Amino acid sequence: MLATIIHGERDIRIEERPEPVVIDAGDAVVRVVAACVCGSDLWPYRGVRETHAPHPIGHEFIGVVDSVGEGVSTLSVGDFVISPFTSSDGTCSSCQHGMQSTCDHLAFFGGNDTNGQPLPGAQGEFVRVPYADGTLVVVPSPVDERLIPSFLALSDVMSTGHHAAVCAGVGPDTTVVVVGDGAVGLSGVLAARRLGATRIIAMSRHPQRQALAREFGATDIVEERGREAGKKIRELLGGVLADSVIEAVGTKESMEQAIASVRPGGRLGYVGVPAGGAQLPIQVLFDRNITVSGGMAPARAYIPELLEDVLSGAIDPGRVFDLELPLSEVAEAYAAMDERRAIKVLLRP
Amino acid sequence: MLATIIHGERDIRIEERPEPVVIDAGDAVVRVVAACVCGSDLWPYRGVRETHAPHPIGHEFIGVVDSVGEGVSTLSVGDFVISPFTSSDGTCSSCQHGMQSTCDHLAFFGGNDTNGQPLPGAQGEFVRVPYADGTLVVVPSPVDERLIPSFLALSDVMSTGHHAAVCAGVGPDTTVVVVGDGAVGLSGVLAARRLGATRIIAMSRHPQRQALAREFGATDIVEERGREAGKKIRELLGGVLADSVIEAVGTKESMEQAIASVRPGGRLGYVGVPAGGAQLPIQVLFDRNITVSGGMAPARAYIPELLEDVLSGAIDPGRVFDLELPLSEVAEAYAAMDERRAIKVLLRP
Repeated sequence: MLATIIHGERDIRIEERPEPVVIDAGDAVVRVVAACVCGSDLWPYRGVRETHAPHPIGHEFIGVVDSVGEGVSTLSVGDFVISPFTSSDGTCSSCQHGMQSTCDHLAFFGGNDTNGQPLPGAQGEFVRVPYADGTLVVVPSPVDERLIPSFLALSDVMSTGHHAAVCAGVGPDTTVVVVGDGAVGLSGVLAARRLGATRIIAMSRHPQRQALAREFGATDIVEERGREAGKKIRELLGGVLADSVIEAVGTKESMEQAIASVRPGGRLGYVGVPAGGAQLPIQVLFDRNITVSGGMAPARAYIPELLEDVLSGAIDPGRVFDLELPLSEVAEAYAAMDERRAIKVLLRP
Repeated sequence: MLATIIHGERDIRIEERPEPVVIDAGDAVVRVVAACVCGSDLWPYRGVRETHAPHPIGHEFIGVVDSVGEGVSTLSVGDFVISPFTSSDGTCSSCQHGMQSTCDHLAFFGGNDTNGQPLPGAQGEFVRVPYADGTLVVVPSPVDERLIPSFLALSDVMSTGHHAAVCAGVGPDTTVVVVGDGAVGLSGVLAARRLGATRIIAMSRHPQRQALAREFGATDIVEERGREAGKKIRELLGGVLADSVIEAVGTKESMEQAIASVRPGGRLGYVGVPAGGAQLPIQVLFDRNITVSGGMAPARAYIPELLEDVLSGAIDPGRVFDLELPLSEVAEAYAAMDERRAIKVLLRP
């Protein structure tokens, strides 16, 4: 099969690899219908994270079940499925608490499963999924092909944006600031609207992203940064800062911006993987009674409810994909995202 | 009038001071019926915080309204009142959000009001209260003298313990660990029980405090510290850590203990004023999806609901007072708390 392999900085290749097979009884093999490139894939692409040896890459995909192990009970060959960006057993304490992203059997596609067996990356033709019952979510038939981008968005970015909004305590009538205009930040805008926020301020300087933010429900756009941004937010919200702030970047600067955007007693939800220097200044948080909540999204917990809204047409998270390419052009997909020519690229094997 | 003045390390004196009078239209002067010594009063007492000049001290009191300014509308002379440990105007954005501890007109007893006028400390015969309408809570007549310790506990420790429990997300059927066996930690145990927690693990090595913790609703006591404590908590909770952890100390060690006691996806509520070295390790919090929430309690927001439960007999937070002394023996009150001979000392002018 064809699979995307990263060899090093800006060195993405499409290569022939052996097709995965069921190894454990709980495995499923899925034929990928659509995959995509994540902002976090750009870290090794840009060399921010070193690639020590060539390895398969990609962790977001949807597809059709091709084969299942004998221990799989909830899936059948031919099922159309959405995969969260990590595996989860569905039975451990974390899974029972709806926190599948800290599952005892968490594994990343493109890495190894918890038995040490390699897992294909999602940017390829087939993927082996461990703990398939606890991981995959079936899309009911008949599958509307036009919804493929939105199904795929649930795999990571929409679930992650939703997690940020939940962590930030977004609810009916809350005011929200979203720091970060990438696919996750934009999904956070959509999640905030879905959860009933009345004022949603997207921080962005990028015209296309501003437009999509507005389409997703942003009521206001703030282009300013730093102190000026805080001033602007107060101005927009009648003299106060936001009830809820979504931080969807992970840098020191974005975290500072997020903390400076939340009102005393408010909540900050962060899903940007903390990069070097991101900090939580305890004295500031204590003095202003700010709640900080976040981490890797338990996408598996959220997909069923978000899927309902995709199927009903209530949300259209697939709008984050503004470029579609065949899998064979995956290198161009990375380049387009790296150069910010595309918000997010959908790949078709 | 008599008032407690701190002169320096271990130098607490009772002195004659001018009786306070109404200065601003919103002021009330309260004749103190009972006051007490707070764990945080021990910081200057022990010299951890330097006392640059002698000043009045104490911030927890209940009493009877002695006079009111012409702008006061909800209080009358003779009303029995509970004062939160800070003043609040009741009208600013923070107050409207129920976060009176970040009020625009926040002032500390023993310090200055927001006009720069000195406020008496609570450990004295009379206190001037700014923004009295927004600050004081009236206890309905007739006042049951036996409930005085519990009314007084609402001024700070019970409200603070409750804030920690709220911040930690304690609710029906949650499991809770309480780090800290001072009056606030013990109040946190009581607050957790009141909010419906089913398992409450108090960390304490002190027999009397363990006994009070059990009386307040602790189902288990853990004497271990560090890794051993984590092991013990898992053992007690069937292999997992706690849903909610209350941190009521504020040191580096207690914060580490608290973080190590909460399950992935759980919540940590902290009310211990962060002392040098207390940290929030963002990567650990992110990896385990731990929510961290806390700060100075908005006691004014909580007193009405807690007061109802005191009046009905549902809770008896005044049990934290295990020593009562006349105001004239305030120096002995500090010594008893400093030497851990008393959990908390009630003072009667």
